[in-house]
Amino acid sequence: MSGSAFPPERPADGGPAMERAEFDALFERLRRDRLPAPPRSARAAAARLVRTGEVVAMGRPWDCVAGPDNRRPALHLMTELADVTPPEPTVHKDFIAADYHGKAQTHLDALCHIAYRGLLFAGVPAREVLSSRGASYGAVTDLLPGLVGRGVLLDVARLRGLDWLEPGTAIGGPELTACAERQGSPLRPGDAVLVRTGHLARRRRLGPWDPDGLSAGLHPGAMSVLDGSRASVLGGDGDSDVRPSPVPGVHSPVHVLAVTTMGLPLIDNMDLEPLAETCARLSRWEFLFVAAPLNIPGGTGSPVNPLAVF
Amino acid sequence: MSGSAFPPERPADGGPAMERAEFDALFERLRRDRLPAPPRSARAAAARLVRTGEVVAMGRPWDCVAGPDNRRPALHLMTELADVTPPEPTVHKDFIAADYHGKAQTHLDALCHIAYRGLLFAGVPAREVLSSRGASYGAVTDLLPGLVGRGVLLDVARLRGLDWLEPGTAIGGPELTACAERQGSPLRPGDAVLVRTGHLARRRRLGPWDPDGLSAGLHPGAMSVLDGSRASVLGGDGDSDVRPSPVPGVHSPVHVLAVTTMGLPLIDNMDLEPLAETCARLSRWEFLFVAAPLNIPGGTGSPVNPLAVF
Amino acid sequence: MSGSAFPPERPADGGPAMERAEFDALFERLRRDRLPAPPRSARAAAARLVRTGEVVAMGRPWDCVAGPDNRRPALHLMTELADVTPPEPTVHKDFIAADYHGKAQTHLDALCHIAYRGLLFAGVPAREVLSSRGASYGAVTDLLPGLVGRGVLLDVARLRGLDWLEPGTAIGGPELTACAERQGSPLRPGDAVLVRTGHLARRRRLGPWDPDGLSAGLHPGAMSVLDGSRASVLGGDGDSDVRPSPVPGVHSPVHVLAVTTMGLPLIDNMDLEPLAETCARLSRWEFLFVAAPLNIPGGTGSPVNPLAVF
Amino acid sequence: MSGSAFPPERPADGGPAMERAEFDALFERLRRDRLPAPPRSARAAAARLVRTGEVVAMGRPWDCVAGPDNRRPALHLMTELADVTPPEPTVHKDFIAADYHGKAQTHLDALCHIAYRGLLFAGVPAREVLSSRGASYGAVTDLLPGLVGRGVLLDVARLRGLDWLEPGTAIGGPELTACAERQGSPLRPGDAVLVRTGHLARRRRLGPWDPDGLSAGLHPGAMSVLDGSRASVLGGDGDSDVRPSPVPGVHSPVHVLAVTTMGLPLIDNMDLEPLAETCARLSRWEFLFVAAPLNIPGGTGSPVNPLAVF
Repeated sequence: MSGSAFPPERPADGGPAMERAEFDALFERLRRDRLPAPPRSARAAAARLVRTGEVVAMGRPWDCVAGPDNRRPALHLMTELADVTPPEPTVHKDFIAADYHGKAQTHLDALCHIAYRGLLFAGVPAREVLSSRGASYGAVTDLLPGLVGRGVLLDVARLRGLDWLEPGTAIGGPELTACAERQGSPLRPGDAVLVRTGHLARRRRLGPWDPDGLSAGLHPGAMSVLDGSRASVLGGDGDSDVRPSPVPGVHSPVHVLAVTTMGLPLIDNMDLEPLAETCARLSRWEFLFVAAPLNIPGGTGSPVNPLAVF
Repeated sequence: MSGSAFPPERPADGGPAMERAEFDALFERLRRDRLPAPPRSARAAAARLVRTGEVVAMGRPWDCVAGPDNRRPALHLMTELADVTPPEPTVHKDFIAADYHGKAQTHLDALCHIAYRGLLFAGVPAREVLSSRGASYGAVTDLLPGLVGRGVLLDVARLRGLDWLEPGTAIGGPELTACAERQGSPLRPGDAVLVRTGHLARRRRLGPWDPDGLSAGLHPGAMSVLDGSRASVLGGDGDSDVRPSPVPGVHSPVHVLAVTTMGLPLIDNMDLEPLAETCARLSRWEFLFVAAPLNIPGGTGSPVNPLAVF
Repeated sequence: MSGSAFPPERPADGGPAMERAEFDALFERLRRDRLPAPPRSARAAAARLVRTGEVVAMGRPWDCVAGPDNRRPALHLMTELADVTPPEPTVHKDFIAADYHGKAQTHLDALCHIAYRGLLFAGVPAREVLSSRGASYGAVTDLLPGLVGRGVLLDVARLRGLDWLEPGTAIGGPELTACAERQGSPLRPGDAVLVRTGHLARRRRLGPWDPDGLSAGLHPGAMSVLDGSRASVLGGDGDSDVRPSPVPGVHSPVHVLAVTTMGLPLIDNMDLEPLAETCARLSRWEFLFVAAPLNIPGGTGSPVNPLAVF
Repeated sequence: MSGSAFPPERPADGGPAMERAEFDALFERLRRDRLPAPPRSARAAAARLVRTGEVVAMGRPWDCVAGPDNRRPALHLMTELADVTPPEPTVHKDFIAADYHGKAQTHLDALCHIAYRGLLFAGVPAREVLSSRGASYGAVTDLLPGLVGRGVLLDVARLRGLDWLEPGTAIGGPELTACAERQGSPLRPGDAVLVRTGHLARRRRLGPWDPDGLSAGLHPGAMSVLDGSRASVLGGDGDSDVRPSPVPGVHSPVHVLAVTTMGLPLIDNMDLEPLAETCARLSRWEFLFVAAPLNIPGGTGSPVNPLAVF
């Protein structure tokens, strides 16, 4: 359980710094007051992408081991082992628990998860709708049936010819567009856009590090592209934010722009490695995407195991 | 925490008693040694069922309230409320926990969940593969990418013209077949078969009761039909077993036949009410079904929120 | 999970109603601004009460079974069973968890647990010192070394010649004084005063009920006696409050007067049955009392297992 | 959360290696078949040690922060913050959870915690009495009223004139005896013997390290002294075992000899710093000792906050 023994050798290219005023202007420009509902026809079109029936899961293993990227490890405890229950049948049970936000569990961020200047999406004051009982606005239950549509993997590491982007590397908007086009899948309204930095490839090779200090991810300026394409969900193998943040005083600018500004749910800490291999093998980077968050009333998100169906 | 104040007025029709020897013969007859892999083409065909893009979720709310059908309530606790984090953005987090097997949470039973005469699916001794660290065989991780296919709702309550079947009512194999045909959706290999008894309609009207003592569900004899049709998953608004059990000395015979004998994962405690309404409205009882269990290494199952896409 | 099937046959004597204004006047009269520190000499004197060395524990069993008096059951799960650890020695471990306030676990209430009109003890605004990270004032850590002194059991049930007081029965101040004197142990500064209603004797005989609706306990007027004697801690086999509350609009007036007004920590849900038997056998109702709350920074209390040493 | 950046500069003196056969002979020599009950008179005598009434608590803070000595951090979550409960009074509640064995929480080891060659204390086979439901023999409930008596701090670090013993340093039996005598408190039957290595002084100065690899503690040979003095409980600021273990193939020989061989409960991870300061200030190293484990049926131990009363 060490801090990373493997910092990048050279500073990664974190993209241009963004003044706070510039960020705030971007916030205003991207601001939405209602969730963009993708046409249902997009969903039916996404289902028609299914040809071979191959399914790839993107949830990282439930992680109960403390480490630099898992400071609040999940729990998985056996509760019944059939060692004291003679009747037929015998049953085996377990208990799971997680403070699932963070850098280890694959999870969805609901709209109540992030506030900027005290306000949630569409300007709702966080203090009025969040309490020790949960959220009365923007909870994960609003997203229950919604995360089904076309998925597009933007494999930026592959585009650059790398196994992974070094932690700290920023991805800009033009690169997202170029990646989508190079892969033959220009972004469309309603897409679940998944951006691969190779985070887990690096972690498996070099061991865990603290992604809160240093991680590859999107430069906040890149959010304009996702606004323009009217994406429905943004997922990443990190948590989508490049770190350190290019915006002084704003720790997670992509979180703000996605969740609070645009109403775009995030899926963090996905394992995109098997997906990337499948896409490369099939030479197609689009598929039917499904994420089914748990039905947690008042919840700020949910652990999920998103699926791609080819 | 008593059993229900609302027992059925008359004993329900629990179907014919089944001698233990008869049950054991059925066990032998249905026994499989390997999981039947539905053809991938079935999955692509299921995806082509999507037309309107309407999505219906079937997960019951995360239930933290103790009651006769929830003796081990789940936990949902807020862990961060932005009351002590001045920096931008502020974040809200929560913690979830559940001993999710039981009668309250919608969950998947993996193949290691049930043993009969000490043996799991395909005759593997439970003692050799289950420990306090989890299961090394039959864990939920084996099912991660698999629960995608055609879903068929067998709305038995509707077929009988009732709001719900009274607890204790057994459903036999012929009724399953008749229901599928009446609805225009004969069962096919790879189907996720969901059987509606109206459990939640009754619970909402009359309050909770103890389903471990009395519940509507399948008679063990009905499993022959699901064997014949080569179903891939069996879901219910109860836990699929009629109770009291018709088999002396076997508490959950349908669990044994499904999980242990046939290798058929179960999904228990689904909310099938919105699905039933949608099916009736659209006059079609088939859809694309997706359940995405969490990636819990060694787990005996997972809470899930299954989706139907129309 | 119903209320008891065993309500008292007749309404118990809940004592005189107390107008809200009367309660508020009592609040003002008993109000303290600093904790009364009992002289250390009292503690040494208490230790000299030890003669036989007999120790009686007062903690109820960790209660993992949901019921009308246990709506948030505790958890006790085995985490290591030596079934996968060949090396020597083998070890067995477990996990415990509890939302310990309530009516089932024996626990201490710290001063931050209760606010009246938004204020904690000594007029500190609750909002300013409580957050999702815990309490920065009045936490249980303030009480860590303090709950050692003379204990006095006031066995009111025995005084009345009953096995237990029926739920709803109020105990007044004069009865506390009379009980102490009859037992030969007039109250003294620094005492841990334990009041027995026979709650657990009734529960063992008749089963659990919902003490939030109906329980024997102190009438708020009785707090003057404990103020006068300068008690250091107040314990009960219920939670010290008679219920229903005699004060309109104040659910737990004794909690307010003890914790918020007087700065008197409460210990709720003690098992006083073995203690009562020992006191009666030895004909002495005073002893060395020790409660050792867990060291939980920011905690609102702690599960405890208080001890009496004779 | 790093592995220690502060290994000792030189290898510490871990004492003589002990062959496995030698260890097994020691096991046989120290083996008891029943728990030695200290005379109750010892307890009364211990109470008479109380003079000033000063109380010192020895429980480390509930530790929710992952680190090299806390791989399974505890949980402390607020469950009620009076943000949604208008009625009077308002209440604040919290939830605690811990897999408390390990190197971070102050806890008691019950006799069922450790087995050697498959056997618990007095030769009881672990497999027969331990299950997923807990222990039916040797549980912490056996120890509920028992941990009250004379406490003696053996301040070995002070004896050596050091702030702390470097991790890996072994303490032998003669040093225990010499320390007790130098301090004017020869060991007596029934004593709670607390051995200070200065573990927490080092941790506060240099940060945490992994004590499972390297820690100061007792050499297994020292257990003869505690057998001879008929100690009732052994506590330490580590977990009493020197590490690396001097016995090949036995990871925690002191745990085996104490818990399994002699029936001597251990208290691990105590904060002995304030106690050491108090003892030095008062020039006395004996006091009334009280540890009150939680009443956890079937439990393998308990978090505790032991007290010393002077």
